[in-house]
Amino acid sequence: MSKVKAYAALEEKGKLVPWEFEQRPMRENDVIIDILYAGICHSDIHNVNGDWGSNKDNFPMVPGHEIVGKVVKVGSSVSKFKVGDLAAIGCMVDSCQHCNPCEHDLEQYCENGATLTYHSKDRIDGSTTYGGYSQQIISREEFVLKVPSNLDLKAVAPILCAGITTWSPLRHWNIKKGDNVAVIGLGGLGHMAIKLAHALGANVSLFSRSPNKEKDAKDLGANEVIISTNEVKMQSVKGKFDLIIDTVPYKHDLKPYINTLSVNGTLVIVGYLGDADDILNTVPLIMGRKSVAGSVIGGIKETQELLDFCGKHNIVSEVEMINIQDINTAYERMMKSDVKYRFVIDINSLK
Amino acid sequence: MSKVKAYAALEEKGKLVPWEFEQRPMRENDVIIDILYAGICHSDIHNVNGDWGSNKDNFPMVPGHEIVGKVVKVGSSVSKFKVGDLAAIGCMVDSCQHCNPCEHDLEQYCENGATLTYHSKDRIDGSTTYGGYSQQIISREEFVLKVPSNLDLKAVAPILCAGITTWSPLRHWNIKKGDNVAVIGLGGLGHMAIKLAHALGANVSLFSRSPNKEKDAKDLGANEVIISTNEVKMQSVKGKFDLIIDTVPYKHDLKPYINTLSVNGTLVIVGYLGDADDILNTVPLIMGRKSVAGSVIGGIKETQELLDFCGKHNIVSEVEMINIQDINTAYERMMKSDVKYRFVIDINSLK
Repeated sequence: MSKVKAYAALEEKGKLVPWEFEQRPMRENDVIIDILYAGICHSDIHNVNGDWGSNKDNFPMVPGHEIVGKVVKVGSSVSKFKVGDLAAIGCMVDSCQHCNPCEHDLEQYCENGATLTYHSKDRIDGSTTYGGYSQQIISREEFVLKVPSNLDLKAVAPILCAGITTWSPLRHWNIKKGDNVAVIGLGGLGHMAIKLAHALGANVSLFSRSPNKEKDAKDLGANEVIISTNEVKMQSVKGKFDLIIDTVPYKHDLKPYINTLSVNGTLVIVGYLGDADDILNTVPLIMGRKSVAGSVIGGIKETQELLDFCGKHNIVSEVEMINIQDINTAYERMMKSDVKYRFVIDINSLK
Repeated sequence: MSKVKAYAALEEKGKLVPWEFEQRPMRENDVIIDILYAGICHSDIHNVNGDWGSNKDNFPMVPGHEIVGKVVKVGSSVSKFKVGDLAAIGCMVDSCQHCNPCEHDLEQYCENGATLTYHSKDRIDGSTTYGGYSQQIISREEFVLKVPSNLDLKAVAPILCAGITTWSPLRHWNIKKGDNVAVIGLGGLGHMAIKLAHALGANVSLFSRSPNKEKDAKDLGANEVIISTNEVKMQSVKGKFDLIIDTVPYKHDLKPYINTLSVNGTLVIVGYLGDADDILNTVPLIMGRKSVAGSVIGGIKETQELLDFCGKHNIVSEVEMINIQDINTAYERMMKSDVKYRFVIDINSLK
């Protein structure tokens, strides 16, 4: 067992500080990756703070589930990877592999609970999983992804969560050339949603409260920006959208957006977790056969499909690089939406 | 213009009383039907009472949109019907015919508003439409349906609303042999949902609060009845259902039912119109890619498909016949759910 350098929150709501952990023993189907880059996801902050259910027992926590690196060791039964390969890890490192969702490449909905990349319990030896804010990560081969060699590696990392979280609904609701897709919110998820929907040939609109996002959104591939507080503009897109991807992470009124769905249209929530009080009414759902759905990340097969698609279309995330010593400042800036559009840690700075 | 005998509410919230109206002038594409039977829908009561938005200008109101009868007159351009044919009318008698939903056989979602069978304005001459609690009805041919001759006519009437309202989601969400379908509520809509889902080959469950509905539900085609207040039973069907058809017409908590949806499952609301306060949470939607949708009746093509399906499978509604003089008593009994499962008026009693 080797010691791995990392940054960790030593307790719930704690600052991130230098820390070391012992990697769990390697198994024959494992791949060990030296991490090059790790994206910072809003959920990292939520997890550190226990916003989605406290789990104080598992601290220290090493966050990070947008991970790109190079394979440095493979177990005896590993066939997909060899030492020196580029590799990526997303939000999961294991699942039961035999329930109905797992058998349909939907490990994210594993009935027995997927093993998350960090702050989760390894389902074989019960050890705690540690994420991407570290030098090295271990995972069974099935959850390790191949990375197209033509892409800018540091900007690939956010594809593993922000990318797949928006890609999965685009694919599930079968978005194709000419479909009308809207994105609510222009952050890490929103900017990837625009790029990916645009690359699929959709007409893409961004809903935003601030007019000053128009140029950025269009540069990313949006055809138009709709100021959601402008009733005339909102009325002009009534019944337009086949799919709305709602990336806003806090509670907000869905009713104005439901009106902009087409008959058979779906608004899919990927950001806000909580109750639907004051934000939804059944009448417009009934009167237009509209749906409100949710979706979380994507399966492993689908994530590989996305990475391959990004390689083919030369799509990466827009990133701002930081050294790991600046992680707490990055968290503070993220809380103020002060990043375009994703912080990525250069793990070389850990040395 | 001929005088037509009917029962009408002379004012909002008024009792139904005998009344006569002048039929609007016949046009070349019209079909006139002598009504034999008219089903009584809960929405008739809601409309009389102005529960879904008051429209006092259009009174007197002659309700009824589950109509079966015989053609007595056809306009010069009518080709689908001849005098003496059986014919039916559902909830609509016209729509714009050129918007996107209309062009896709979804007249119920007409962007310009379908002309409803009663208490609506004819889109050509502006006259008020009068429904099935009357001796005769007039409609453009495209909205008149053919009735299979092998079915018990009086029990066909409820297919035109209760039937199509549950059939349309079964078809839209592509229910087929072996799928798991649940129905919430055993009334006019619920009993048709069970019959139709069963005829499509689905495994059908009924959610109910009362254990004494088990025999009736099984007689209609349900495989099991789940007492929704029994947490153990509810837990035993966690993640089971591909589609839940929620026919309950008042506000109720959706969260226990969402837990019983499968990954990719949909709960479709066809009964309750109103806000989603306290009844919905986004977390289980996100964590299982589940959807909450709405749906209203069905298009004309789909309604004809349903009537043909019912003819082939010998499906009709369970009905209790009344004379029109008993209509107010029937309304009172419906408010207490005291009917198995649909009242149908023998229009012969109007003479």
